Amino acid sequence: MAEDMTTPLLSDSEGPADALPVCLTSPTVAILGSGDFARSLALRLVASGVRVVVGSRCVNRIPSGLFPDAVELRNQEGAVSQAVCLVFMALFPEHYCSLLGLQSALAGKVLVDVSNAAEMNIHGLSNAERLAELFPNSLVVKGFNTVSTWELQTGAHDGSRQVLICSNSTEGKKKVVQLARQMGFHPVDMGGLSAAREIEVAPLRLLPSWSGPVVVTFLLFLFFYGYGVLLGILLPFLAQGHNAFYRLALDLVNESLPAVALVTLALVYFPGLFAAWLQLWSGTKYRRFPSWLDNWLQRRKQLGLLSFLGAALHGVYSLCLPLRRISLHRIVNTAYKQVKAGTEEPWDELGVWRSELYLSCGVLGLGVLSLLAVTSLPSVGNTLNWREFTFVQSGLGYIALTLSIMHTLFFGWDFAFHIEAYPFYMPPSYLLAVVLPCIVLQNLCRTDHR
Amino acid sequence: MAEDMTTPLLSDSEGPADALPVCLTSPTVAILGSGDFARSLALRLVASGVRVVVGSRCVNRIPSGLFPDAVELRNQEGAVSQAVCLVFMALFPEHYCSLLGLQSALAGKVLVDVSNAAEMNIHGLSNAERLAELFPNSLVVKGFNTVSTWELQTGAHDGSRQVLICSNSTEGKKKVVQLARQMGFHPVDMGGLSAAREIEVAPLRLLPSWSGPVVVTFLLFLFFYGYGVLLGILLPFLAQGHNAFYRLALDLVNESLPAVALVTLALVYFPGLFAAWLQLWSGTKYRRFPSWLDNWLQRRKQLGLLSFLGAALHGVYSLCLPLRRISLHRIVNTAYKQVKAGTEEPWDELGVWRSELYLSCGVLGLGVLSLLAVTSLPSVGNTLNWREFTFVQSGLGYIALTLSIMHTLFFGWDFAFHIEAYPFYMPPSYLLAVVLPCIVLQNLCRTDHR
Amino acid sequence: MAEDMTTPLLSDSEGPADALPVCLTSPTVAILGSGDFARSLALRLVASGVRVVVGSRCVNRIPSGLFPDAVELRNQEGAVSQAVCLVFMALFPEHYCSLLGLQSALAGKVLVDVSNAAEMNIHGLSNAERLAELFPNSLVVKGFNTVSTWELQTGAHDGSRQVLICSNSTEGKKKVVQLARQMGFHPVDMGGLSAAREIEVAPLRLLPSWSGPVVVTFLLFLFFYGYGVLLGILLPFLAQGHNAFYRLALDLVNESLPAVALVTLALVYFPGLFAAWLQLWSGTKYRRFPSWLDNWLQRRKQLGLLSFLGAALHGVYSLCLPLRRISLHRIVNTAYKQVKAGTEEPWDELGVWRSELYLSCGVLGLGVLSLLAVTSLPSVGNTLNWREFTFVQSGLGYIALTLSIMHTLFFGWDFAFHIEAYPFYMPPSYLLAVVLPCIVLQNLCRTDHR
Repeated sequence: MAEDMTTPLLSDSEGPADALPVCLTSPTVAILGSGDFARSLALRLVASGVRVVVGSRCVNRIPSGLFPDAVELRNQEGAVSQAVCLVFMALFPEHYCSLLGLQSALAGKVLVDVSNAAEMNIHGLSNAERLAELFPNSLVVKGFNTVSTWELQTGAHDGSRQVLICSNSTEGKKKVVQLARQMGFHPVDMGGLSAAREIEVAPLRLLPSWSGPVVVTFLLFLFFYGYGVLLGILLPFLAQGHNAFYRLALDLVNESLPAVALVTLALVYFPGLFAAWLQLWSGTKYRRFPSWLDNWLQRRKQLGLLSFLGAALHGVYSLCLPLRRISLHRIVNTAYKQVKAGTEEPWDELGVWRSELYLSCGVLGLGVLSLLAVTSLPSVGNTLNWREFTFVQSGLGYIALTLSIMHTLFFGWDFAFHIEAYPFYMPPSYLLAVVLPCIVLQNLCRTDHR
Repeated sequence: MAEDMTTPLLSDSEGPADALPVCLTSPTVAILGSGDFARSLALRLVASGVRVVVGSRCVNRIPSGLFPDAVELRNQEGAVSQAVCLVFMALFPEHYCSLLGLQSALAGKVLVDVSNAAEMNIHGLSNAERLAELFPNSLVVKGFNTVSTWELQTGAHDGSRQVLICSNSTEGKKKVVQLARQMGFHPVDMGGLSAAREIEVAPLRLLPSWSGPVVVTFLLFLFFYGYGVLLGILLPFLAQGHNAFYRLALDLVNESLPAVALVTLALVYFPGLFAAWLQLWSGTKYRRFPSWLDNWLQRRKQLGLLSFLGAALHGVYSLCLPLRRISLHRIVNTAYKQVKAGTEEPWDELGVWRSELYLSCGVLGLGVLSLLAVTSLPSVGNTLNWREFTFVQSGLGYIALTLSIMHTLFFGWDFAFHIEAYPFYMPPSYLLAVVLPCIVLQNLCRTDHR
Repeated sequence: MAEDMTTPLLSDSEGPADALPVCLTSPTVAILGSGDFARSLALRLVASGVRVVVGSRCVNRIPSGLFPDAVELRNQEGAVSQAVCLVFMALFPEHYCSLLGLQSALAGKVLVDVSNAAEMNIHGLSNAERLAELFPNSLVVKGFNTVSTWELQTGAHDGSRQVLICSNSTEGKKKVVQLARQMGFHPVDMGGLSAAREIEVAPLRLLPSWSGPVVVTFLLFLFFYGYGVLLGILLPFLAQGHNAFYRLALDLVNESLPAVALVTLALVYFPGLFAAWLQLWSGTKYRRFPSWLDNWLQRRKQLGLLSFLGAALHGVYSLCLPLRRISLHRIVNTAYKQVKAGTEEPWDELGVWRSELYLSCGVLGLGVLSLLAVTSLPSVGNTLNWREFTFVQSGLGYIALTLSIMHTLFFGWDFAFHIEAYPFYMPPSYLLAVVLPCIVLQNLCRTDHR
């Protein structure tokens, strides 16, 4: 069924167009308004086999060809009188009151409010509720505002097909649901008209749950990248004139990403600990958490996905390392020096073990994180019950955190105890990054044992 | 709930089988026909606790054991008379008229048409509509044709669980919806009986929205691969006898894939530009686009995913390069030559910067494309509103295109200005591939500034 | 709509809280019980604008502040008498009979059973069915048991939002569906009350379809890893004192994973062959398969995904190989030896072809497996009809199997015919792994030609 809406509307050629249910004798629907939305709505309705009459205050000013030929153009009174039961209000909510004269003509009919909210934070009533106050004898239904004109014109195959609908009138809702289905959308019943506020605001949202986590992750990246520039490029350049600016593009990014991913992963499990401490401290688990903690708890999924993104990019960057020009340069010169020295390179047992271990931990950690990311897909998460969800998210989460910390510690090996690891008396960034995760992991283990 | 249909039907052992709602006293259902579909349907119905009677013209010819024991076998009249309200028509639509004698016995009952269309392009009525014409006093419901016999027998856990249903009778639809639910399927109301045409054709589809984009991508691949074979293998072999046929398996594929991915990505954004030009030229945005442009606009998602597939394969292929036997061969011989020359390899600042930059752009571009691919998953896209969808698809899309072009240009570096880059007077394939994307990107920027 | 439940409940600050539909004059709802679930339910109901009265046998013992202020606390009789039509039974099913005195007060009201099953295998009636027996004059609806207290308190944005509902009373179901929607959940109608058994067991499941395939895959891994330890580490150490223990961490894992992935992929297609043989042998396709084969057939998706996981990890591990310390060691020493020998490394045409071919087959095989994995996502699979699903799963599956076998055979090249490939007279593990897949593939081809 993925394709049933992708046929061009009103195509004049042969083909699947004749498969449209034009034979359906559906009652005439009126649209008040002649803007972009009214036009796209009319197009889709006509293509779905519905008779449409458009009502406008100044019919004569509508350019010919704006609406499809099958659409009848009338003044507002004429359009309303032709509508059997459904009237779309495709005009600005500010102009609703200009229709008060039609109150009796609209009585008993279903008025579909397709307007969006003007801003995110509405005070007072929603547009649909105000419409219901103005026309108490009509059945007001909220709907179709979440659909774009593009989706109306070409079918909803690109974005979502859902049409959110709410109304206090079961009868009205039923008719709009039926029409939405006929037009190829998936109507979703959102309950009573009080839900209109939420529906009107829906199209204005721009990933609200992501902004916080993205900002946090970005700031962490800036910090670690800046620290890396200072410690790995600027200070060596100033102190010894050592030119390593080429590291800006890839090396330093690849050094910062794992630090960011590790800290972000710890931030996923940190608020849970905080909540547990708070409950212990307040002596009851029946007190509401402060709202910042609530917000944090609700952004754990986003933080986890950003951590996965960072870890995955780090993985790909690391795998790119042998492809670099400088990598060839180093190998060749190492071989050259070995030849000059006249001996084979000696076997470095510890070095070999170190690289095998940190690579293995890294790969496995990334693998576990991928499983977590997959289960956070809505369609996969929906097949899990709460017990399974907790098992996956907590169980696999702890394993991923443990493996990531081991990856970092094996990478660091015993260098943390050598003075050379602290040029300019500053610790390497992976040591900074591993502190918070270690605290979280230690407390997670302690909490579980209790 | 992912598992409620995976219990074996009619298992004679202990276990979850006794959890089936056999106690439900549902009214007897008749199935007319004794083919594969009738049999699987009977199996599933019995397993869902429904009493089933199968009606066949020649009951005696049905091998014993074909239907489960709980099923009663009768002639057609007998079966119909036993059915309380539901009759499944599991016979070929051509034989519907042979049942005209049962017209009065079927009056008032719900007839479920489970047939598929014979071919994709139907002219005239659908099977269900013809059935409704033949039995005007019955309630005809279309449904279950999208379900395979395998899904009926073992549960729908493999493919989709949706059962598309349509009818002009609300009463009939309600009963079939209820039964479908009892059988463990997800009934989807598709509206009036005129939707039957679409439902009957649904099982015949074979990824129609993919054929065009796949063909285009494949032709592009053939072109770039063929160009590579000519320029990199055949001509050098003919001119200088240089044997590089080993490059056929991996090297040339890895050279063609990024070119294909880049051009395909440009093809995602090209039709939008075209549409904008067309609107400017015709002076109105209220003219319908030509159907080829409409089709193209509706295949952008598929083109984008194919571009991502190409880019991802290119990424993995590139990361494989150091694993090749020839890579070791080259490094060792480079070191050998260096030793012979008696000097270390000199520091190649430009070469180092070049490789750092093109690798970094490539990784980031692939990362952004992955995000785009994830949001094109239906369950993720459904959570986005139109504004968010546009933000992700356009915003991230431009970034991905820009990064891909930069990746190509950094890879090319200044070689485009050297005569050695044009052996046999033909440009390298990445130069060919970057032309269209550059045009698209330049116009995208210009369109946005206006 | 992904966000409508993430607003903190009962927040005392300004913000989106005032957008809640508090104005909705919904009838009072009673909750019997004062445990954790009752409390969370009350919180969510109040936050959704519903008037709530909680009934408890010992009201005085409830600590103040346990329930939000808007909730009225009464004894059980008082609570039931205030409830207009809905009563939540938030107490242990064992205590249902203690409410028998309220039988007449509860008559005509909707009783919502929110209990879970005590264990996976229930014999006898479900809790909801027993409740319906105890209160024959009430409308019993099963529901909300699949929702956790955490989801009730903070919104269902983490896990699933589905609320599974069933009842023999259409009226009662309708009211609960409406309330669930008002609370921000997605009610799913599961049919009659006999479905309660299944719904009560649902929260106890822990990935039942995964346990078998995971155990099989894990045992295969143990076998191949153990075989590798024996053949590659222990025997050489005992026989020649050769220390290769460093290979435990990465090398041997990377040697075992592809073997596991290959055998598991063959296990996906093996039961289908078995089923075909069985049908041929029994001479009929109308006999039910034995239950072990049925189970196996129904676990193919899980086996396929585990095979993909193994193959993907193998891919990443292999790409890590050049990053290892030992890899640098080997290259440098090869170069050193070449220099000592005084000649360039000779061109090894066969070796070059071998590596190009097995890498190419491996990358393509993994790519095809990824496509298979993507189509097994529920939201993607739902958009495919049966024909498309079979095309993808069988068609691409055979290609993936063929490519994987070619990858293995090219990797093995002609070494299988050299005696050095059999140290200690044991074949290398990839030879063991390739046997079953070859048998499966050969029979698949033969079956298709018939």
